[in-house]
Amino acid sequence: MSKEVNEEGQTQTEEKQMKDYAEPPAVALMEMGELKRWSFYRAMIAEFVATLLFLYVTIATVIGHKKQTGGTCDGVGLLGIAWSFGGMIFILVYCTAGISGGHINPAVTLGLLVARKVSLVRAVGYMVSQCMGGVCGVALVKALMKNYYNGHGGGANAVAAGYSKGNALGAEIIGTFVLVYTVFSATDPKRSARDSHVPVLAPLPIGFAVFMVHLATIPITGTGINPARSFAAALVYNSTKVWDDQWIFWVGPFLGAIVAATYHQYILRAGAAKALGSFYANHTK
Amino acid sequence: MSKEVNEEGQTQTEEKQMKDYAEPPAVALMEMGELKRWSFYRAMIAEFVATLLFLYVTIATVIGHKKQTGGTCDGVGLLGIAWSFGGMIFILVYCTAGISGGHINPAVTLGLLVARKVSLVRAVGYMVSQCMGGVCGVALVKALMKNYYNGHGGGANAVAAGYSKGNALGAEIIGTFVLVYTVFSATDPKRSARDSHVPVLAPLPIGFAVFMVHLATIPITGTGINPARSFAAALVYNSTKVWDDQWIFWVGPFLGAIVAATYHQYILRAGAAKALGSFYANHTK
Amino acid sequence: MSKEVNEEGQTQTEEKQMKDYAEPPAVALMEMGELKRWSFYRAMIAEFVATLLFLYVTIATVIGHKKQTGGTCDGVGLLGIAWSFGGMIFILVYCTAGISGGHINPAVTLGLLVARKVSLVRAVGYMVSQCMGGVCGVALVKALMKNYYNGHGGGANAVAAGYSKGNALGAEIIGTFVLVYTVFSATDPKRSARDSHVPVLAPLPIGFAVFMVHLATIPITGTGINPARSFAAALVYNSTKVWDDQWIFWVGPFLGAIVAATYHQYILRAGAAKALGSFYANHTK
Amino acid sequence: MSKEVNEEGQTQTEEKQMKDYAEPPAVALMEMGELKRWSFYRAMIAEFVATLLFLYVTIATVIGHKKQTGGTCDGVGLLGIAWSFGGMIFILVYCTAGISGGHINPAVTLGLLVARKVSLVRAVGYMVSQCMGGVCGVALVKALMKNYYNGHGGGANAVAAGYSKGNALGAEIIGTFVLVYTVFSATDPKRSARDSHVPVLAPLPIGFAVFMVHLATIPITGTGINPARSFAAALVYNSTKVWDDQWIFWVGPFLGAIVAATYHQYILRAGAAKALGSFYANHTK
Repeated sequence: MSKEVNEEGQTQTEEKQMKDYAEPPAVALMEMGELKRWSFYRAMIAEFVATLLFLYVTIATVIGHKKQTGGTCDGVGLLGIAWSFGGMIFILVYCTAGISGGHINPAVTLGLLVARKVSLVRAVGYMVSQCMGGVCGVALVKALMKNYYNGHGGGANAVAAGYSKGNALGAEIIGTFVLVYTVFSATDPKRSARDSHVPVLAPLPIGFAVFMVHLATIPITGTGINPARSFAAALVYNSTKVWDDQWIFWVGPFLGAIVAATYHQYILRAGAAKALGSFYANHTK
Repeated sequence: MSKEVNEEGQTQTEEKQMKDYAEPPAVALMEMGELKRWSFYRAMIAEFVATLLFLYVTIATVIGHKKQTGGTCDGVGLLGIAWSFGGMIFILVYCTAGISGGHINPAVTLGLLVARKVSLVRAVGYMVSQCMGGVCGVALVKALMKNYYNGHGGGANAVAAGYSKGNALGAEIIGTFVLVYTVFSATDPKRSARDSHVPVLAPLPIGFAVFMVHLATIPITGTGINPARSFAAALVYNSTKVWDDQWIFWVGPFLGAIVAATYHQYILRAGAAKALGSFYANHTK
Repeated sequence: MSKEVNEEGQTQTEEKQMKDYAEPPAVALMEMGELKRWSFYRAMIAEFVATLLFLYVTIATVIGHKKQTGGTCDGVGLLGIAWSFGGMIFILVYCTAGISGGHINPAVTLGLLVARKVSLVRAVGYMVSQCMGGVCGVALVKALMKNYYNGHGGGANAVAAGYSKGNALGAEIIGTFVLVYTVFSATDPKRSARDSHVPVLAPLPIGFAVFMVHLATIPITGTGINPARSFAAALVYNSTKVWDDQWIFWVGPFLGAIVAATYHQYILRAGAAKALGSFYANHTK
Repeated sequence: MSKEVNEEGQTQTEEKQMKDYAEPPAVALMEMGELKRWSFYRAMIAEFVATLLFLYVTIATVIGHKKQTGGTCDGVGLLGIAWSFGGMIFILVYCTAGISGGHINPAVTLGLLVARKVSLVRAVGYMVSQCMGGVCGVALVKALMKNYYNGHGGGANAVAAGYSKGNALGAEIIGTFVLVYTVFSATDPKRSARDSHVPVLAPLPIGFAVFMVHLATIPITGTGINPARSFAAALVYNSTKVWDDQWIFWVGPFLGAIVAATYHQYILRAGAAKALGSFYANHTK
C-alpha cells in the first residue's frame, strides 16, 4: 500500500484519516428562519441584479451581432456571443459568490438543492429572483435597441431547423451537466480544504464551462442551460414558436442538473466514502 | 440558527463577531497632505502612463482593423477590438494596482471617491492625469498611422445610426455599472481579508468586465464607459458630431459609477451591517 | 557564489540543501493492489466521463461550425474550434485532477508512465476508459446532430491535402511535446513545494497548450495530440481514408509524449540533480 | 498622515519600515562563475527549446491561416494569430520560469540586464540560445509546411505598405515597452513579498501583453517586439525586403526595453525610494 500514484496522494491521506476536512451538514429543506435574516433578502437582491446584468449584456450582444452581419463579417461572431455568456458568468459569479453563492441560474440552484446545500426556501426565493431579474434585463435590451430587437429574434431560445425536439432536449441535458458538474467540482469542500483561495478561482472554470457549451450548442438551440435566461427572453419576445419550445429549456437543464448533482455526490464523493469503508477494512486486516 | 447555506458560512461568522476584518476609515475629502508626498506624484505618473498605453493600443487596434476589412475577413474583428480594451485593462490594472490603485478611468475614480476610498484631491489629480495620458496615447496613434487615422473615424465614440441619444446614455450607464460593480466586488475589504492574494487576481475579472461591455455596446456607441478614453479620442479626432455626443460619455459613466458605488456600499455592505444589527438583536434575545 | 540571478534563487537554495521538497518515489509498474481499491475504479469512471464530455462538446462544435459556414461568416471559426478543445481540457483537468489526476488523453498517461508517475495497471485502465468515453461522446454527437454529422466529416483527424504523412507525423509529435511538456512543468513536485495551490492553477496553462497547438495544426491534420480523440472520431465516422491515417495519431502523440517526458525528467530534472552533484563538489572545495 | 487611500496601504507601511522585503543585490556584469554551473547550461537549453516551440507554433499558425483565407472566412484570423503569440508566451513563461526565468526574448533579457537582474554573461548566453532556438523552430515550419511556407511570406516581419520605417520603429518601441513594463511589474520583488505565489500567476499578464500588442501592430509590421522571432523568420525566409527592415526589429525592441526598465527602476521603484527619503524626513520632523 505504500506506493500510489502521485495525484492520489491527497485522497490516500484522507482515507487513512477518514477525512481531514469538514463536510458541511445537509441543509434542512424547510429552513424558515432564513426568512428573518437580512442576508437572505440581500442574497435575493444580488441574484436579481446579477441575472439582470447577465441577460442585458448577453442579449444585447446577440442583437448587436445579428444587426451587423448583413453580408459583411463585422459582427462579434458566434464566438463573441459564446464569450459573452461565459464571460458574464465568470464576473458575476466572482462578484456575487460572497453574497448569494453566485448561482444566477435556476438549474444551478436546483442542483445545489438536490445535494442539500441550499434550503428549499432559499432555492425558491433565488429562482424567483433570477427569473424576475432576467426579464428586467431583456426588457432593457428591448428598450435600448428597439429598432432591432424584434427583427433579430429577441435572443430567444428555440429548436433550430434540422434538429428534433429530442435532439434539443438531449443537448440541454448534457450542456447543463457540464456546467453543474463544474460548479460542484469547484465548490467541493474537499477542494476548499486543500486550496484556501477557491472563492477567487472557481468562477473562471465555471465561466469557461458556459463558454464551451455555447460553442457546441448555439447551432442547435441557441443554448439555454439556464431556465431564467430562456424564460426571460421568451416572455419579452413572446412568439408562439418560442413558447412551444419553452418546456425543453426547463426540463433539460433541470434533468442535467439533477444528474450532475447525483454523479458528484453519489459516485465521486459519498459513494466513494461508503465504498472506501469496506475496501479499507479489507485492506488493513 | 445552526443551519445556513454553505456559501454564507463566511457571512454568518462575521455577523457573530461583528467583523473579523478591518473596515478602512473613510478618506477625508480634502487631504492636502497628499500633495507633499512623492507617492502621490508617482501615482499620477503611473495613471498617466497607463492611460497613454491603454489608448495607444486600443485605438491602434480599432484603426488597424477598419483599414483591413474591405470585404475580406482579415481584420481582428469586433471581437478583437473588445479583447483589446478588456485585455489592456487587465494588464494595466495588474501593473499599476500597487502604485496608484490602477484606476485608469475617471468613472472608476469617481466611484471610489463616492465611497470615500480616495480623497477629492487625489481624485481630481488622477482624472487630470488620465485625460492627459489618453490624449497623448491617441496622438501617438495619429502620428504612427496617419494615412488611416482620419479616414477610419479616429476611434472616437458617437451614437450609431438607429439609436437615440437616450439609448446611448442608458447603454453607458449600465455598462459602467457593470465595470464599477466588479471593481468594488474585487477590492472589497471583506474579500481581501479572506483571500490574501487579491491584488494579483482582481485585475482579471475587471478586465473581463470591460471586455463583456464592449461586446454588448460597440454597435450602439463604440463603447465609452471611460470618459478619459472618449475625451481623448474626441480631442484628437475633433469632429462636430463627436463633440455633440461627448456629454453622453461623461454623464453616462459618472451616473453608472455613482449608482454602482451606492449599490455596493449601501445595499450589499453598509446597509447590510445596519440591518444586521437589528436582526441580530432580535435573533439572539 | 554569492550573486546569482534573481529567478534562480530558488534553484540555488535547493542545491545547497540538496532538496527541500519530497521527490515522490517511482511507482511500481505492476501495482496489482490498485485493483482492490475503489479509488482506482472511481478514477476510471472520472476519466471515462471526462473524455465523453470532451469529445461531445468539441466534435459538436466542429460539426455545428461546418454546417454554418456556407459562404457566410456566421460560424465559430477555426478559432472557436481551437478554444473548444483547449477550454474543455482546462475545465475537465480542473474538475478531475483531484480524482484521477486529470489525464483525459492516452498520450499524457503514457508520458506519466514513462516518468514512473503512474503504474502500468493504472495506465492501461485509464487508456481503455478514455477510448471508451471518447467513443460514447462522439456517438452522442452523431445521435443529436445526425442530419449533419456524416456530411461534415465527423470531426475525424486525417492528413489534409498538400501535406505528406511525414509532415502530419512531425506535427503530431511536436504538438504533443508542447502539451506533455506543459503537463510535466505544471505538476513538477518542485513547483508544488513552492506554490501550494498548483492543483487549482495548473489546468489553465495545460488548456492553453491544447488551444495553441490546435491553432497551429488544424490546417495540417485537424489536430490529434490525443489518441482517444482520434480513435473515437475514426470509429464512429468509419471511413477508409480516416482509418488509413489513424496510425499517425497514435505513433505521433506517443513519440511526442515520450520525448517530452524524457526531456523533463533527464535534462531539466534528474540530469540536473546528477550534474549538480559534481559541479557542486568542484565549487565548494 | 493617518489617512491614506486604501490601495496605498501597502506602500505606506513600507515607507515607515523602510522596506519589509528584501531587495536583491545588483548582479555583477561579469559573473564568470556561472560558466561552471550546470544550472546555467540547463537554463540555456530551456531558453533554446522554449524559443523553438514559440516560433514553431506561431509561424505555423501564420502560414496555416494565410493558406486558408482565399475569399472564405475559414482561417483563425488575425485574432487567432495574436492569441497564438500571446498564448505561447503565457505557457512557455509558465514552464520555464523556474529554470531560466522564462525570457524567450532578447529584449526582455536586455531589460533585465539594464536593471542588473542578470549578468552580462548570462544575457549573452540567453540571446544566442533564443536566436538559435528560433531559427530551428521556423526551419521546422518550413520543413512541415513546405508547399505553403514561401508563398505566404514565411511569417517574417516587415514594414507594411502605407507605413514609414519611422512609424514601424515607433510601434516596435512602444509595443516592447508594454511587454517589458509588464514583465517588470510582474516580477517586482515588492509584489513577490506580498503575494507568495507570483511565479504561477505572472505568466498570464505577460502573455496578455504580447497578445494585446499583436492586436494593435500586426497591421503595421506583423509585430516583432522580439528580436529572436524577427531574426529567425528573416533568416529562414531570406528575402531582401525583410533583411532591409531587420534593423527596426532589433533597435525598436531594445530601445523599448531600455526605456521600460528605466521607467520601472528609476521612476516607480528606486527613484521613489530616494525621493521618499527626503519627503519622509520633512514629514515627520
